[in-house]
Amino acid sequence: MALAKIVVALGGNALQRKGAPATAEAQLEVVTETVQYIAEMSCRDYELAVVHGNGPQVGNIVLASETAADVVPVMPFDVCGAMSQGYIGYHIQQALRFALQKRNRNIPVATLVTQVVVDKDDPAFQNPTKPIGAFYAEDEAKRVAAEKGYSVKEDSGRGWRRVVASPMPKRIVEFSCLTELWDTTIVITAGGGGIPVIEKEDGSLEGIAAVIDKDLAAARLAEDIGADILMILTEVEKVSLNFNKPDQKDLDHITVAEAEKYIAEGHFAPGSMLPKVQAAVNFVKGNPGKKAMITSLFKSLDALDGKTGTVIS
Amino acid sequence: MALAKIVVALGGNALQRKGAPATAEAQLEVVTETVQYIAEMSCRDYELAVVHGNGPQVGNIVLASETAADVVPVMPFDVCGAMSQGYIGYHIQQALRFALQKRNRNIPVATLVTQVVVDKDDPAFQNPTKPIGAFYAEDEAKRVAAEKGYSVKEDSGRGWRRVVASPMPKRIVEFSCLTELWDTTIVITAGGGGIPVIEKEDGSLEGIAAVIDKDLAAARLAEDIGADILMILTEVEKVSLNFNKPDQKDLDHITVAEAEKYIAEGHFAPGSMLPKVQAAVNFVKGNPGKKAMITSLFKSLDALDGKTGTVIS
Repeated sequence: MALAKIVVALGGNALQRKGAPATAEAQLEVVTETVQYIAEMSCRDYELAVVHGNGPQVGNIVLASETAADVVPVMPFDVCGAMSQGYIGYHIQQALRFALQKRNRNIPVATLVTQVVVDKDDPAFQNPTKPIGAFYAEDEAKRVAAEKGYSVKEDSGRGWRRVVASPMPKRIVEFSCLTELWDTTIVITAGGGGIPVIEKEDGSLEGIAAVIDKDLAAARLAEDIGADILMILTEVEKVSLNFNKPDQKDLDHITVAEAEKYIAEGHFAPGSMLPKVQAAVNFVKGNPGKKAMITSLFKSLDALDGKTGTVIS
Repeated sequence: MALAKIVVALGGNALQRKGAPATAEAQLEVVTETVQYIAEMSCRDYELAVVHGNGPQVGNIVLASETAADVVPVMPFDVCGAMSQGYIGYHIQQALRFALQKRNRNIPVATLVTQVVVDKDDPAFQNPTKPIGAFYAEDEAKRVAAEKGYSVKEDSGRGWRRVVASPMPKRIVEFSCLTELWDTTIVITAGGGGIPVIEKEDGSLEGIAAVIDKDLAAARLAEDIGADILMILTEVEKVSLNFNKPDQKDLDHITVAEAEKYIAEGHFAPGSMLPKVQAAVNFVKGNPGKKAMITSLFKSLDALDGKTGTVIS
C-alpha cells in the first residue's frame, strides 16, 4: 500500500524563538528541536514534504543588504527570498538528517530552491500589505518610494516601511522535481511560500517583490501532489472562534462549509489564522476526502493520532 | 544506450563580468548568456549536472552581514554559503529553464542545497589561505582575530582579512538525491564547492568556516556519479605551459602522468589553474577511461566536438 503523504507547513516559531536574538546559532537550536517531530512522523511511515516560513529571516537579509548599500549592491527581494531558502533549508536538512539517523531511518533530506508563479494581474498587487525591510521617517519613505517605485505605508505606529503584495500561489515551478524525489526523500520546498515569479508573454519567468503566504503555497503543493494530509503547524493547539475573548470556543472538527462560514463571519485574523484556515479550505476543496489539520508543533504527533488539533475535512 | 553524463563546473566569469558591478541584475544577464551553452549541451543529448563558483557572491553576502552587524546578527560563513547557493542556483535554474524551453526541451532544472563533508583533520586547517570578508587595518584585524578566534593575514598589500582553510571535499551529503534526479533533471548542486561541514563523533554534521574548491567538488561529484566527462570551464580556451611567457605552449591532449609531471614542475598557479588540473587528474584517476576537459565557456561546444580545449585522459 502506498504510504500516506503529508505536507507539513512550519510556522515561524518552529524556526526561531520569539524575543530571542535572530542568530543562526539560535535558529539551528530551535530547528534541531523542531525536526524531532518531523522525524517521528517519518518513523510512522508517512511520506513528507516540508514547507517553512521565512518572514524574520528574509526581513533580516533585506535589512542587512539595505544597511550595507554603500559597500555592496543591494539585492532585490526575490534574490533575498532565494537566499532565505538556502539558509533555512540548510539548517532543516542538516538537523533532520541527523534526527532520522538517530532513529535508524536512512532517508535522505533535500532542499529544492523553489519558484512559485503568481498572476501578474492578481488583485493583491493593487493593494500591497506586507511590510519588508527598514523603517523610515515619513518624508524619507516617500522619497525612497518615488526614487525606486516602491509602495510605502505606515506600519503600526513604528514608522514607514516598504510594502509588497501577497498574491496567490498559482503554480510551483519545480513541481516535477518534487514528484521525482517524493518517494525516497523528505523534500524541503517552497520555503517562505516560494520565490515569487511572474510568467511573461514569451514564457520566461521573472522574479518580483512579493510575499506568497507559505500556508497557501503548502496547500497548493498538497493539492497538486495529492497529499492525504495538509498539516499546518502554528502556535496554538486548535483553531478558535472568538479567539482570546471570554467566550472563546476551540474547534475540533469542522467541515469546509463551516470553515467558510466562520471566515465570512470574520473570526480569523488576516495575516494570522485566516490564511491558515483558507489554505486548509483550498486543499480540502481540491482534494475531497482528504483532510487538513491545524495544530501546534508540539501537538502534531497527537493530532496525527486523532487526539487533538483542528481537522478540516 | 544510456546518455553520456557530463558534470559542468562553471567559473566566476560564467556568472559575473569582471569589473562590472556585482548587482543581481547584472548577474542574471551574464547567467542568461551562460545557460545557452548548457542548454545546447542538453540538446546534444548529454545528461548534465552543474556546479558553480560563488567567490564574489559569498564575499558580498559576508560583507553585507558584517557591515550591518549593529542592525542584524552577523551570519556565520557556512550560512552565507548556503545563501549563495540559493541566490546563484535560483538565477541559473530560472534562466536555464527558459533556454531549454525555447529549444523545445522540456527538461526540469533544480537546485539542491548541498553540504559537502571535509575532514576536520585536513592539513589545510593548519594553514588557512582563503581571504573572506572585510579589509581591516593590522591592529584591528588582530583584535577581531583574538576576539572571534579567526585567522587573519595580510592580503596582497590591500589590508588585513580573515582567512579560512580550503580543505578537500570528501563526500557530497545530498548525493543520493542527485542520483534520483539525474536521469530526468538538470541538477545544480555543490554550488561554491558545497557548504563545508565536518562529521562529528556522534555522526551529526556541523557547518564550518572553510572554502571548498568548486572544481575539486565537481570532480568528487563526477567521480561518484560515474560521469563520462568532467568539463571545467574557465577563462582560457586551453591549459598552457609557461603561461603568459614568450614560450607559452598550449596543451591539447595530455595524460594523467603528464598532468602530474607539469603540476610537479610548478606550471600551474595555485588558486587558479592548479586546482582545475588537479580536479581533472582526480576524476580521471578515479574513473579510468573517462575524460576531463578544461576550456572556456565559449568554446565548450567545440570542445565537446573534439575541436579544442585541453583534454586529460
